[in-house]
Amino acid sequence: MDKIKVGVSGYGVIGLRLATGVELQEDMELVGISDVAPTLAIRGLVESGRPYNFYNAMPENEEKLKEAGVKISGTLEDLVKKCDVILDASPGGIGAENKKLYERLNTKAIFQGGEKDEVAEAFFHGYANYSKGVDKDYLKLTSCNTTGLIRAVDCLDKAVGVDRVALTIIRRVADPGDYHRGLTNALQMDRAPNHQAVDLMSIMPHIDATGLLVHTPVTHGHIITVLASTKKKINKEETIEILGKHPRIRTVKIDDGFLGNASLFRYARDMGKLRGDLYEIALWEDSIVNSGNDIMFAINIPQESVVIPENMDAVRAAMGIKSGAEATSLTNKYLGMK
Amino acid sequence: MDKIKVGVSGYGVIGLRLATGVELQEDMELVGISDVAPTLAIRGLVESGRPYNFYNAMPENEEKLKEAGVKISGTLEDLVKKCDVILDASPGGIGAENKKLYERLNTKAIFQGGEKDEVAEAFFHGYANYSKGVDKDYLKLTSCNTTGLIRAVDCLDKAVGVDRVALTIIRRVADPGDYHRGLTNALQMDRAPNHQAVDLMSIMPHIDATGLLVHTPVTHGHIITVLASTKKKINKEETIEILGKHPRIRTVKIDDGFLGNASLFRYARDMGKLRGDLYEIALWEDSIVNSGNDIMFAINIPQESVVIPENMDAVRAAMGIKSGAEATSLTNKYLGMK
Amino acid sequence: MDKIKVGVSGYGVIGLRLATGVELQEDMELVGISDVAPTLAIRGLVESGRPYNFYNAMPENEEKLKEAGVKISGTLEDLVKKCDVILDASPGGIGAENKKLYERLNTKAIFQGGEKDEVAEAFFHGYANYSKGVDKDYLKLTSCNTTGLIRAVDCLDKAVGVDRVALTIIRRVADPGDYHRGLTNALQMDRAPNHQAVDLMSIMPHIDATGLLVHTPVTHGHIITVLASTKKKINKEETIEILGKHPRIRTVKIDDGFLGNASLFRYARDMGKLRGDLYEIALWEDSIVNSGNDIMFAINIPQESVVIPENMDAVRAAMGIKSGAEATSLTNKYLGMK
Amino acid sequence: MDKIKVGVSGYGVIGLRLATGVELQEDMELVGISDVAPTLAIRGLVESGRPYNFYNAMPENEEKLKEAGVKISGTLEDLVKKCDVILDASPGGIGAENKKLYERLNTKAIFQGGEKDEVAEAFFHGYANYSKGVDKDYLKLTSCNTTGLIRAVDCLDKAVGVDRVALTIIRRVADPGDYHRGLTNALQMDRAPNHQAVDLMSIMPHIDATGLLVHTPVTHGHIITVLASTKKKINKEETIEILGKHPRIRTVKIDDGFLGNASLFRYARDMGKLRGDLYEIALWEDSIVNSGNDIMFAINIPQESVVIPENMDAVRAAMGIKSGAEATSLTNKYLGMK
Repeated sequence: MDKIKVGVSGYGVIGLRLATGVELQEDMELVGISDVAPTLAIRGLVESGRPYNFYNAMPENEEKLKEAGVKISGTLEDLVKKCDVILDASPGGIGAENKKLYERLNTKAIFQGGEKDEVAEAFFHGYANYSKGVDKDYLKLTSCNTTGLIRAVDCLDKAVGVDRVALTIIRRVADPGDYHRGLTNALQMDRAPNHQAVDLMSIMPHIDATGLLVHTPVTHGHIITVLASTKKKINKEETIEILGKHPRIRTVKIDDGFLGNASLFRYARDMGKLRGDLYEIALWEDSIVNSGNDIMFAINIPQESVVIPENMDAVRAAMGIKSGAEATSLTNKYLGMK
Repeated sequence: MDKIKVGVSGYGVIGLRLATGVELQEDMELVGISDVAPTLAIRGLVESGRPYNFYNAMPENEEKLKEAGVKISGTLEDLVKKCDVILDASPGGIGAENKKLYERLNTKAIFQGGEKDEVAEAFFHGYANYSKGVDKDYLKLTSCNTTGLIRAVDCLDKAVGVDRVALTIIRRVADPGDYHRGLTNALQMDRAPNHQAVDLMSIMPHIDATGLLVHTPVTHGHIITVLASTKKKINKEETIEILGKHPRIRTVKIDDGFLGNASLFRYARDMGKLRGDLYEIALWEDSIVNSGNDIMFAINIPQESVVIPENMDAVRAAMGIKSGAEATSLTNKYLGMK
Repeated sequence: MDKIKVGVSGYGVIGLRLATGVELQEDMELVGISDVAPTLAIRGLVESGRPYNFYNAMPENEEKLKEAGVKISGTLEDLVKKCDVILDASPGGIGAENKKLYERLNTKAIFQGGEKDEVAEAFFHGYANYSKGVDKDYLKLTSCNTTGLIRAVDCLDKAVGVDRVALTIIRRVADPGDYHRGLTNALQMDRAPNHQAVDLMSIMPHIDATGLLVHTPVTHGHIITVLASTKKKINKEETIEILGKHPRIRTVKIDDGFLGNASLFRYARDMGKLRGDLYEIALWEDSIVNSGNDIMFAINIPQESVVIPENMDAVRAAMGIKSGAEATSLTNKYLGMK
Repeated sequence: MDKIKVGVSGYGVIGLRLATGVELQEDMELVGISDVAPTLAIRGLVESGRPYNFYNAMPENEEKLKEAGVKISGTLEDLVKKCDVILDASPGGIGAENKKLYERLNTKAIFQGGEKDEVAEAFFHGYANYSKGVDKDYLKLTSCNTTGLIRAVDCLDKAVGVDRVALTIIRRVADPGDYHRGLTNALQMDRAPNHQAVDLMSIMPHIDATGLLVHTPVTHGHIITVLASTKKKINKEETIEILGKHPRIRTVKIDDGFLGNASLFRYARDMGKLRGDLYEIALWEDSIVNSGNDIMFAINIPQESVVIPENMDAVRAAMGIKSGAEATSLTNKYLGMK
């Protein structure tokens, strides 16, 4: 069978990881990437010496790109023409602009969480609603927190049924390397409910979800506390058993040295994972506790990489692979998850 | 009536605020303070030029204290002899040591949250269980988070009944000026359940409480998200109405500029509050949201000053004032709360 | 003699401290303050219950201000008419706008470091070039770092002569309470030379000054390392002797607990200084070291309050007090410096 | 020629990078690594699936190690017996303990900056004093800041002569993943002079060096500002020319997106460098400025990886390779530096 031809538009924190993700899928081919300027990510790609096909999405920056040593293979339009599907990881709002081009050239596209829901025919998660994405032309993925959260909630839901979730999201405020935003010695309150709860209900409409979000001055890894009302009451051991089997969830313990989000980032770097990226969310075993009939626990969301697997799933759904089980297990295999 | 003679043992972050609190109570007299070394707080007191009576709790440091210009009025034992009640704000564990002295000299004492429960006859909160403290010799106050949390939960409980609370505590990791601990770009997970939930159940045994705690790299003000299952379902407006009337709770809005814990600290400093201290916890109106039949909201805990009012209440309880309503309203009046 | 009538335009971090500073000067009268909206600072002023005269600089916000409980005494124009001199602490650039009003109403004005140099007839420092400000209509003060730095360099220069300074400014990135900017786990390099060195040369043209500036994720207190080439070589003890006598410089030691900028902020709060403000810069005795014939040392700049004294000096200069020694010693006395 | 047999004792932040470094040297063989417990780094190695030879330096932890899935090849003594040279990256002080074993077994060892100078026959830097290390049994490497600093100063010194350096070290306070130390919203002053200046003089005794060090709440990358008095005055362009040619120094520009230490870390991660590690220090072109006849500039020190190259050099020196030029150029080639 022919490989699926994939392009990545927007080579930022998410885009460069999508490109790597595609390169790892044996049933896909990375046709090229596109961006608008010689950003750090593009400069790094050039310095790395790895082969690349760069398509320039902003013709007026051609000179600057060339000065930075970027070899240009064409325009964004050229890239789109060569692809079956574009993974669009442009800054929020640009994806909607780009969509006009994708429509004109009759190319499928997957958008990220920063775009408005209207950009796509379906709001997609590889495990929770795979079938909604099959054969669609335009899909929108959930944001990093929602993606990781849904993994856990959907997994619980399939095992014992979930009626209600109440979240507290302890959000990292910036990505490593960000200078355009940050907090210094300040927590910031968001209005309730947080959009992640609302998005979860959009994907899993049978669940009552709400929650609060607080921004914190850290750069790597959100922590979400989840209170889930399950149809069947479960205890700590059962929770570990259920969530621990999920290929995209790892369970960790404080006693093993996983003291917080920073331990997980260090662990991935120590291991030699590319860019220090984990694709799995982590569940702290020490955090699981019953509250009445409900179960409460904390998970870690590696914001830079967590959405990559579900994006790979989405490509397969859009390209017509009918079985979510098949699609997700291919993703898991190629990305090296259990 | 004679004023209650009060001494403060341990002139750290809490102790110096207790001393100020006592000075503001018209029915109390601050006999003196005690500490072991010329700390920054003691040096500041000396430089301030304000009158003080310092009792040296560590005779071997007399030279150092004198070099720092500290005028010494006697030993800790001398202080205890002159007092009806000691507010002990020594580092955790030292209070239990000091208790032997208090017992020997037949002096009542109020301990802080860092001591073990066994140090006292009752674990005390001015609103939730005032009567437990009346005429007792040794009381232990709840820690900063628990004190503020109980204010809110007890207030809700008295209005509509509370069966269950599930908390997420987003904890500041150090006090402003701390160099002996801190986090840099890291969130730290605690084991569940957090002690604040356990302590709440100790004071309010009819409530099922549990929760998670995450340390964050900020120095001023915890944020707690509370999910409360009330006997009677209440909405946002009712929650504001109920909690907003409490003399030790203020309601704030994001639109008014209260974006997070740092806004509240700045607000108090701008206002000219001594040391930038607020005695009230703050409830974000924008955080209140229903989750099923439960209500969820976020409060801010000013960790340095929040326990001062309940300590003043405790002094009155220990000294035999029977009415909690009278004791707390005196505290509120003298501390300038509504 | 009649008191100098002073108004403060812009009631932010600096403006509210200028207002307090003016209130403390026995030869000045605070006519009123002006701002454009019910900011946290204004809300705090209202809640504090202290008397104030508020002049509304943005008529379209009258409703909002009234809703926030602000009593309005008139417009900015009304305030200017009543004053001999306006301390303008508006955001950078607004001062230049306001100047048109000051000129039209023939009122003197003192601008802060955020304005361009052209706004004023002289760039002013109370100690280094007081005479340049005498009888002028429009003065511009140096920014916080430059103000504190010049105190130290001018003091050394007057004692032993200074030919050259090379600085490294370790800059706090935001004020406490700021949510519009911040850094999280990042240092940020500025282009050389830093403006503080350039500004120093503008005030003290006989000195060769340059330096580097690095933004750091802290909110309270800059640290500047200064390498000064003095005409006469001095050692550590002489440096302490010279700088320690300055009324606006305090010397501190690590062994006394002054471990960094955060110790100084805590010290001021512990002492009960209004808003935790120190007017003095601090010199670490432990930092003083010879480098060849040069002397190197580190100073702390309390960014919120350090410029207040020099602003008071500037008012007196503008109003015609000829003697800098007299003007600065009045400031020092009224602000409680040694 | 036989490969040099190298063991790594202590598999922490530095040790695991030394192991990787040795694996990349074609003239060396990594015999094995040693540590005392199933730390995160060891757990990561096990999970990674990469082959390893682990020697247990703390027999009483054998059970714990096995529970964590660690395959044990023997004791530390077994490892030492098989090696020509041990790279000891144990926590400070443990290296001196281990040395007894190395002496008994007649094995050469390279110690890191955390050990006391007395542990070794020479304090070593691959460029500045290579010949001091030739054929020695025990060498001590400089710490991360000193290593990077000496690269720059030695390079300048060889080109135009350096008489004096005055430093300001803006130090990261913890490594990514550290929970045992950290600063939150605080800068911390160290006593002058900093040890890096003293160490530099120990390696380069003809230079007069001193400086100040301030700890800052960031985790990745120190910044050092250097004022160097050169024998021949040089300007910005000449400085770029001289330092930019060094194989272990890269020059960067703010306009290219290198805004601070965090940009460099992100750049290395984006590029796909193992663990996000750069071996080079970075020089900001925008920071170079003349101060009188001196030159001033800022460099970035990637604290986790910067010492790896000089350690590789040290192995070759200890093993008798006479030419520093040959040794360093092998290191540079195998580590992929220009």
